Amino acid sequence: MSSTTISVTAPADFHVHLRQGSLSELVTKHVRQGGFSLAYVMPNLTPPIRNTEEALLYKTQLQAIDPSVEYLMTLYLSPELTPDEIRKAKAAGVVGVKSYPRGVTTNSDGGIESYEVYYPIFEAMEQVDMFPRLRIVLEHATTRAAVECVKSLGPTVACTITAHHLDLVVDDWAGQSWNFCKPVAKFPDDRLALREVIKEGHPRFFLGSDSAPHPPEKKSVSSPGHACAAGVYTSPILLPLVATLLESFGALDKLEGFVSGFGRAFYGRETTEGKVTLRKVSDKVVNESWSLGDASVVPFWAGKNIGWEIVKE
Amino acid sequence: MSSTTISVTAPADFHVHLRQGSLSELVTKHVRQGGFSLAYVMPNLTPPIRNTEEALLYKTQLQAIDPSVEYLMTLYLSPELTPDEIRKAKAAGVVGVKSYPRGVTTNSDGGIESYEVYYPIFEAMEQVDMFPRLRIVLEHATTRAAVECVKSLGPTVACTITAHHLDLVVDDWAGQSWNFCKPVAKFPDDRLALREVIKEGHPRFFLGSDSAPHPPEKKSVSSPGHACAAGVYTSPILLPLVATLLESFGALDKLEGFVSGFGRAFYGRETTEGKVTLRKVSDKVVNESWSLGDASVVPFWAGKNIGWEIVKE
Repeated sequence: MSSTTISVTAPADFHVHLRQGSLSELVTKHVRQGGFSLAYVMPNLTPPIRNTEEALLYKTQLQAIDPSVEYLMTLYLSPELTPDEIRKAKAAGVVGVKSYPRGVTTNSDGGIESYEVYYPIFEAMEQVDMFPRLRIVLEHATTRAAVECVKSLGPTVACTITAHHLDLVVDDWAGQSWNFCKPVAKFPDDRLALREVIKEGHPRFFLGSDSAPHPPEKKSVSSPGHACAAGVYTSPILLPLVATLLESFGALDKLEGFVSGFGRAFYGRETTEGKVTLRKVSDKVVNESWSLGDASVVPFWAGKNIGWEIVKE
Repeated sequence: MSSTTISVTAPADFHVHLRQGSLSELVTKHVRQGGFSLAYVMPNLTPPIRNTEEALLYKTQLQAIDPSVEYLMTLYLSPELTPDEIRKAKAAGVVGVKSYPRGVTTNSDGGIESYEVYYPIFEAMEQVDMFPRLRIVLEHATTRAAVECVKSLGPTVACTITAHHLDLVVDDWAGQSWNFCKPVAKFPDDRLALREVIKEGHPRFFLGSDSAPHPPEKKSVSSPGHACAAGVYTSPILLPLVATLLESFGALDKLEGFVSGFGRAFYGRETTEGKVTLRKVSDKVVNESWSLGDASVVPFWAGKNIGWEIVKE
């Protein structure tokens, strides 16, 4: 029996939320299940990851859940951060500092309002080669303007794109809280710009899933004056989902670059190990949910057909 | 004790959903409670109001609930409608025909896809002076483009604006299903265009609340792949709400034109009777909900401060 397959070397998710407690126990295992062996881990916990010690403790917790994934740890940019702490973090293997505009996403109440106060931090980051010449990543672009801005900039500026923003437009999340995330999906022309930049194989645009699990009751219900939680959860189906989407707009040949090569090159994490193979399928349906203990999550595309599955080794 | 008051002659809501059954019993009484004595009633029931007989039956039901309001009845434009039925409807006091683009709002599955098939209907409507020279109303404009389009057209084309679209922008309904309605609220510049056209006192732009009650469980919950109900409910607080909003952008002097004079003139329903007086207040809070029997509704601005209240006669 013949089948269509495609192989990808060491898929890497350069923006993922692995949470805390029982939810973390559930979703951290989904990184590998979704085909990924590297997770660039977001620090917006409660409280946020603000120093090296907290980052290393969190990394230990994630490794205890699934030691087969490489976790790249990050710090939350806050007034407490010092140039000395940057140097300490670099020595301990921390790879980035995340800047959260205040109040725009989950646990961003401590986000920044002005960058000027952080100039000494950025200088220290550059000095320790945390990024050679301070690399900057625009996370999850959703507009044509963002794509064009990043394209116009030099080699130290890159951009992550989520899987779900390749699929959704504003009509898909209007009243449908499960598709509601921040940044919100925009208009068809914006989605087209995201698809086009992937299709052209631009090396500074790569996957960061922004996979963001929330308890189902926080996703499904809103009360007057209170929004439901923002976030779309893609981890357990991530590689098959991205393959399905890229195939839908004729960019399947760019899969490896988008989900592995481009991001790894930008962050200096190249590898030739860890091949993952996908098989084209016609009757595969995404799970309605996953549970573990008192935690459960509902994935993007729950109950929908998906065009690819990971071949078990 | 002094107080600030403002009086309006015979407020008229030129676009309101009064529903059926127990929900209708509850919300029809809110027209008068909200300060209005004329309701231009939408025909998108289940099944829709498609002929004169159904319109008159529905009117009788509404009058039984509250005989103090003048109900202007409309038909749902569908392939069943004939030029003869238009003449019959006119003779029976029906005042308009509503065209629903298919599938875009509540109970619009039978909406239209192309206007050409209806040209004979429009001709008959013009002949019977249902509108002299076929007046057309763009319902609930939400964009600057819509405002500019209507302004550019002649005296037979008017436009309704809801109260809530004077308040909301996209961020207010993102994840907040209680503020989700169709058309969705757009960007700050679009809201500014709606406010500006009211502030200039343009006579072809007037209030149509689009007040659209839904059972709370249909507003608060969405499941994957299924949107919650679209609609914002403003009837029981309508006149105080509009006064509060117009005051917020310096257009309180245009209140009477916007909520009564302009729409009544366009539809040929002028009157000098029925003055309603509002009093400025500082500690008034909008009810969290209203109930009657098994029906309940949650209003826009539930639990929020509102700046005006109707003076009881």
